[in-house]
Amino acid sequence: MTDPLGPAVHRAPTGLAGADGLTPTPDDRFTFGLWTVGWQARDPFGEATRPALDPVEAVHRLAELGAHGVTFHDDDLVPFGSTDSERAKHIERFRRALIETGMSVPMATTNLFTHPVFKDGAFTANDRDVRRYALRKTMRNIDLAAEMGARIYVAWGGREGSESGAAKDVRHALDRLKEAFDLLADHVTGQGYDLRFAIEPKPNEPRGDILLPTVGHALAFIERLERPELFGVNPEVGHEQMAGLNFPHGIAQALWSGKLFHIDLNGQSGIKYDQDLRFGAGDLRQAFWLVDLLESAGYTGPRHFDFKPPRTEDFDGVWASAAGCMRNYLVLKRKAAAFRADPRVQEALLASRLDQLARPTLHAGETAAVLLADTSAFEEFDIDAAAARGMAFERLDQLAMDHLLGVAG
Amino acid sequence: MTDPLGPAVHRAPTGLAGADGLTPTPDDRFTFGLWTVGWQARDPFGEATRPALDPVEAVHRLAELGAHGVTFHDDDLVPFGSTDSERAKHIERFRRALIETGMSVPMATTNLFTHPVFKDGAFTANDRDVRRYALRKTMRNIDLAAEMGARIYVAWGGREGSESGAAKDVRHALDRLKEAFDLLADHVTGQGYDLRFAIEPKPNEPRGDILLPTVGHALAFIERLERPELFGVNPEVGHEQMAGLNFPHGIAQALWSGKLFHIDLNGQSGIKYDQDLRFGAGDLRQAFWLVDLLESAGYTGPRHFDFKPPRTEDFDGVWASAAGCMRNYLVLKRKAAAFRADPRVQEALLASRLDQLARPTLHAGETAAVLLADTSAFEEFDIDAAAARGMAFERLDQLAMDHLLGVAG
Amino acid sequence: MTDPLGPAVHRAPTGLAGADGLTPTPDDRFTFGLWTVGWQARDPFGEATRPALDPVEAVHRLAELGAHGVTFHDDDLVPFGSTDSERAKHIERFRRALIETGMSVPMATTNLFTHPVFKDGAFTANDRDVRRYALRKTMRNIDLAAEMGARIYVAWGGREGSESGAAKDVRHALDRLKEAFDLLADHVTGQGYDLRFAIEPKPNEPRGDILLPTVGHALAFIERLERPELFGVNPEVGHEQMAGLNFPHGIAQALWSGKLFHIDLNGQSGIKYDQDLRFGAGDLRQAFWLVDLLESAGYTGPRHFDFKPPRTEDFDGVWASAAGCMRNYLVLKRKAAAFRADPRVQEALLASRLDQLARPTLHAGETAAVLLADTSAFEEFDIDAAAARGMAFERLDQLAMDHLLGVAG
Amino acid sequence: MTDPLGPAVHRAPTGLAGADGLTPTPDDRFTFGLWTVGWQARDPFGEATRPALDPVEAVHRLAELGAHGVTFHDDDLVPFGSTDSERAKHIERFRRALIETGMSVPMATTNLFTHPVFKDGAFTANDRDVRRYALRKTMRNIDLAAEMGARIYVAWGGREGSESGAAKDVRHALDRLKEAFDLLADHVTGQGYDLRFAIEPKPNEPRGDILLPTVGHALAFIERLERPELFGVNPEVGHEQMAGLNFPHGIAQALWSGKLFHIDLNGQSGIKYDQDLRFGAGDLRQAFWLVDLLESAGYTGPRHFDFKPPRTEDFDGVWASAAGCMRNYLVLKRKAAAFRADPRVQEALLASRLDQLARPTLHAGETAAVLLADTSAFEEFDIDAAAARGMAFERLDQLAMDHLLGVAG
Repeated sequence: MTDPLGPAVHRAPTGLAGADGLTPTPDDRFTFGLWTVGWQARDPFGEATRPALDPVEAVHRLAELGAHGVTFHDDDLVPFGSTDSERAKHIERFRRALIETGMSVPMATTNLFTHPVFKDGAFTANDRDVRRYALRKTMRNIDLAAEMGARIYVAWGGREGSESGAAKDVRHALDRLKEAFDLLADHVTGQGYDLRFAIEPKPNEPRGDILLPTVGHALAFIERLERPELFGVNPEVGHEQMAGLNFPHGIAQALWSGKLFHIDLNGQSGIKYDQDLRFGAGDLRQAFWLVDLLESAGYTGPRHFDFKPPRTEDFDGVWASAAGCMRNYLVLKRKAAAFRADPRVQEALLASRLDQLARPTLHAGETAAVLLADTSAFEEFDIDAAAARGMAFERLDQLAMDHLLGVAG
Repeated sequence: MTDPLGPAVHRAPTGLAGADGLTPTPDDRFTFGLWTVGWQARDPFGEATRPALDPVEAVHRLAELGAHGVTFHDDDLVPFGSTDSERAKHIERFRRALIETGMSVPMATTNLFTHPVFKDGAFTANDRDVRRYALRKTMRNIDLAAEMGARIYVAWGGREGSESGAAKDVRHALDRLKEAFDLLADHVTGQGYDLRFAIEPKPNEPRGDILLPTVGHALAFIERLERPELFGVNPEVGHEQMAGLNFPHGIAQALWSGKLFHIDLNGQSGIKYDQDLRFGAGDLRQAFWLVDLLESAGYTGPRHFDFKPPRTEDFDGVWASAAGCMRNYLVLKRKAAAFRADPRVQEALLASRLDQLARPTLHAGETAAVLLADTSAFEEFDIDAAAARGMAFERLDQLAMDHLLGVAG
Repeated sequence: MTDPLGPAVHRAPTGLAGADGLTPTPDDRFTFGLWTVGWQARDPFGEATRPALDPVEAVHRLAELGAHGVTFHDDDLVPFGSTDSERAKHIERFRRALIETGMSVPMATTNLFTHPVFKDGAFTANDRDVRRYALRKTMRNIDLAAEMGARIYVAWGGREGSESGAAKDVRHALDRLKEAFDLLADHVTGQGYDLRFAIEPKPNEPRGDILLPTVGHALAFIERLERPELFGVNPEVGHEQMAGLNFPHGIAQALWSGKLFHIDLNGQSGIKYDQDLRFGAGDLRQAFWLVDLLESAGYTGPRHFDFKPPRTEDFDGVWASAAGCMRNYLVLKRKAAAFRADPRVQEALLASRLDQLARPTLHAGETAAVLLADTSAFEEFDIDAAAARGMAFERLDQLAMDHLLGVAG
Repeated sequence: MTDPLGPAVHRAPTGLAGADGLTPTPDDRFTFGLWTVGWQARDPFGEATRPALDPVEAVHRLAELGAHGVTFHDDDLVPFGSTDSERAKHIERFRRALIETGMSVPMATTNLFTHPVFKDGAFTANDRDVRRYALRKTMRNIDLAAEMGARIYVAWGGREGSESGAAKDVRHALDRLKEAFDLLADHVTGQGYDLRFAIEPKPNEPRGDILLPTVGHALAFIERLERPELFGVNPEVGHEQMAGLNFPHGIAQALWSGKLFHIDLNGQSGIKYDQDLRFGAGDLRQAFWLVDLLESAGYTGPRHFDFKPPRTEDFDGVWASAAGCMRNYLVLKRKAAAFRADPRVQEALLASRLDQLARPTLHAGETAAVLLADTSAFEEFDIDAAAARGMAFERLDQLAMDHLLGVAG
């Protein structure tokens, strides 16, 4: 097939379209799940408010808005229960849309949550035959993902969990989860695919408690796999915030661990049900620090939006919402750059001793014994003088606020 | 010195004191921080309601209540700023109390949060000299801990965090945290101490966001240390629940990872400020599942209570609260055992297919290729029939409820 | 029609069926929404796991389990879009089932949330024609409710809210909400119905923020209606707990205000998505204090279960879950009675000075001027002695714990 | 005394100082609690990091920054336990500072939480003598507040609550709370003070659960007082957000009820311990909608900052933080005005049918009977066409985002 990751022949030259810096271009690497703009807006208390969206139309519309690519669950692209020939047709139409638009498929994933068979989980379902089925469903879509040129395969185990204490032996469940990922890694390696896995944590919903509830738990789990180098995380803004955690902090630990393989950008207004607001909505200040971090850390992966246009919206609202995700990212990127470049900020960072944090605590080659012998570190340390030093964080944070609000002068 | 871990000569024979199973004995391995019963009940809005408690009295009273041992921060035992000779006296008095009561000191830790010098952290303070001082303060108390026979050294980094986005470069801070733990591990190894570290996570308070906010983040961090085998976690009930996480699930992952080195038992009523209620108060059902897990997993470490007797209480209330912690653990332990032994429960576990969860998903030696060739797993799998099977979790959970409430008949 | 509130001719004599106190009888006044046992278990991430349940079967099964009555939304009983003759048939079948079983319908309510037309609300939808339609839909079902003998009409405004700041002018929305309730009260009064309204608060889900988010907000709103005497609240356990609020405290304020017209019993595990667990699951200790409060306050309304049998369950699980709701209430009721009757508890309550709280602060007839002249109250008050008194709450709470766990001896 | 509410003779003419609109002037009516800039930064885990601040210096510094006035607890101004002559001196020095700076005292309040005697509450303490003492302490400071020209007396019942279920009979406690407020209203009325009360809700901390936990609960409670007209609310941003509630929504209901007597502005990062960040920090988007609401509703009371400069800061940081509160308010005020004036916004509001929400649902004079006869409202209503209409909220919200971020063009 023609490489969907190849040059975008039908797209406006990026230098032109994004001249003001706020119009997205493929170079910005914005990607969207088919299930985002295609969400029909069924919720626990209400029926769908929007008709189904043809994946082909989604590809075209997102390309027009300036996206770089799309991502999919197997069942987004090929309705569950399709015959093999129907499946082939769906894939072919989609492939053609990619070629026509120059859109890529950097990531794919498996739907292991919609069908009732997964009501108690997939890789950790108590029923062994369900687990085996889930593995096969995943392997099938991994093959398609590799064929589409995806480099990342996301695994969100939304149904791996429980609502009551005896229903799931978590240690056994983690054994099963490890078994599943080890097998999938074997499959990918055996097939020679250039594909790595990104585990997506979530604390709860749709299960009362989900296994690997945070970025931290997923990072820790990965270290017990047989091929940890093939596994990283796919943190989602709202998922960490549903546990009240600071999202940029979690991303920083993932980066520090060399494990930020992919990211799901959206918005969430605090600890409540999963909202999947457009990026920028929800906690705007964390969104600013997130973009600041991703950009300053040189993150090169896709900026993937996993949001749900609110149920109140028709398709005009869907596209407005999708465009808003990208616009907000670009605005925050510009602001973060201006913040870092501002001489007052650089001075304030020094006043807050961020330079000292960047320096090792120990002198070069210093051992425990040497430190113990350094009386300036303890016996002669003027603790009261040190305690009296202000950290000057409020001034620094207000400078950030001024940049965010566009009143930094 | 006489080994404080030695036989408790002044204690009632355990077989006698705990005849009804609800009276704690040293064999139950219950331990208390000096700072728990000794908390003077100062809170953000109010002054102390209780006078200081002499550590020696705490040791005696806790021994009378049936505790196994006590734990301490350096400054609990020796007031901050004491001279060397005062320090020696405090330690000697304490040591004598241990010998008199047969109480042990299985764990110790450092106070790196009370003095204003730690207002921006200790191992990750922006100020380098504060970091060096914190290391020395810790090394000093590690030496005392080893001398007292402690086998676990807890590290709670309560001030390692920030309230605003630019105030802490988290990746640099994690570098500093790793540097600190690597040095401390060198120190312990160099001194030949039989001492391992247990990192205690907390999501927030007293900082807006704390580094290593959950058990998962701490487990992941440990894997990047130079001597990971020396590091485990010390999860605290309330800390994980402050992030809305299921505490037994977190403990299960820690056990699964071989990293449950210590545990802090208390109570918390949901996502709010850190309450440190007595064990059993707060989420009683999670407390039940926790005890069920610890006991069935064969956890052999201390059952350490890190709670705060409410500010409304005088010392009678303090001791009632401490006794309640132990009583509730023992009651739950008895109930968990009865639950597991009940034939109806065993039948219900089978009905919920917990036995299948305990079995590998793959057949012995089965590879990806073999699984792909098994048409019963996918092509011929009767997904609708599988989906129709009920999991029978409600019956199982009601049996647990009946046991918890003492109406299981 | 034969009065469905009349004697239950097909039911076992209550004195017999409930001899052990833990088998529910109609005298316990347990009621269930048709939508609870009839929930098909569709959630935001998954399709239905259970087939539709015939309301007639629900009535019969719940009667067999010992329930007193059922409640319904208009669309639970009569599928949306039915013709008038279909509607009449559905109602007639249902009525017959009530007569056969002796079940009552103490409450009914309107579905103003499932159809997409209500995506922006019903009584406070921005679209005026939607508001008018919602009023008419409600009036229609009020007529049916009155005919069925219901005395309470619940109003849950689940869609009255917003996800973004400008989308809803809350002051205008409250005007519209008042307008709606005033009109409905006029209708009920005009028709001579013996029917009062119970407003059901919820903080969020399915909207980002819902109007009248807590019991307090609803109580306050009622005071601005034209006929406040016709309005009370229908608090739901999980809804208040989704805001981290103490449910029994909210119920106490509703009782204190004379406004506890109805109650929705279920379970919720902390601040997260709406779980609707069976009663007793979730926060068991709050469930205990709730039952203690309802029973000691002489609440005479139905004990209405508004729960969702988990999606993992088949119909066996549904009925086990429904039975568990009632069983847990009865167990807690028995325990609360034993707790209050225990002489040690009565002594502990005195030690905690609950008797003093029951006494007015002022002497009979004491005015501000008299109090100002009482030097014993201020000038001569021994504040330090007063501060030193312990409240003895820990002992009291441990007694409650012992009763709850069944180890009170 | 010279009226401290009189003209500010030592202040720059407001038209000059605030020429750019972002420099605060007394006309902006910004006020600060003495306890905010004066907070010594003691927290549950650490000692004070700042020395005491002389209230006289606070007045002068805040005046220089552009504040309109200050507020105080009795014990902020006069240290607890002062003799009468010491008290007079403290008051006199303070009064002189007010005159010198032209600062006003629009509000005062009582400290009923710091002294251990209030550990179980003040107006609802179980101990009757504590309740009487609390009333007298309050009456004493009300007299001073009236003398200082305050028009609002805030009542925050931070200790009115409990940590365990039996410790507080909430219905009795509400009786006592009503008794207290009725007496205080009698006192104010009897003395002829032009002073009204503003009740400040908070869900928890320092008590496990606090009575009147939200704006709604306080509004409802007021309606049961003998003189409800003298009572309103003093909502605090962070307090409502600690319950996950939408703060602007709560303010809207308070305004709708005619009860927004005062407001406490600060910042909070979600559901956790009480943070008291500077205004603008925390949930910036809610801060924007709050200012939009206060300004468009014509709220004329003080803009009172009740924040705590972070514990990391020295006094430079304290004043930077105080200045940031005011600056952020002014920036948001300017942006809200621009948002409302933008023709695209006005068009978007129409597209979202906010104009229809402002119109009554009923025609003028329309009764229930008339509505029932309107077939266009129900029988002929094209529900599917209505359901298909998009609400256009995403476009509207993105316009707000653009204005907030300063990229609205």
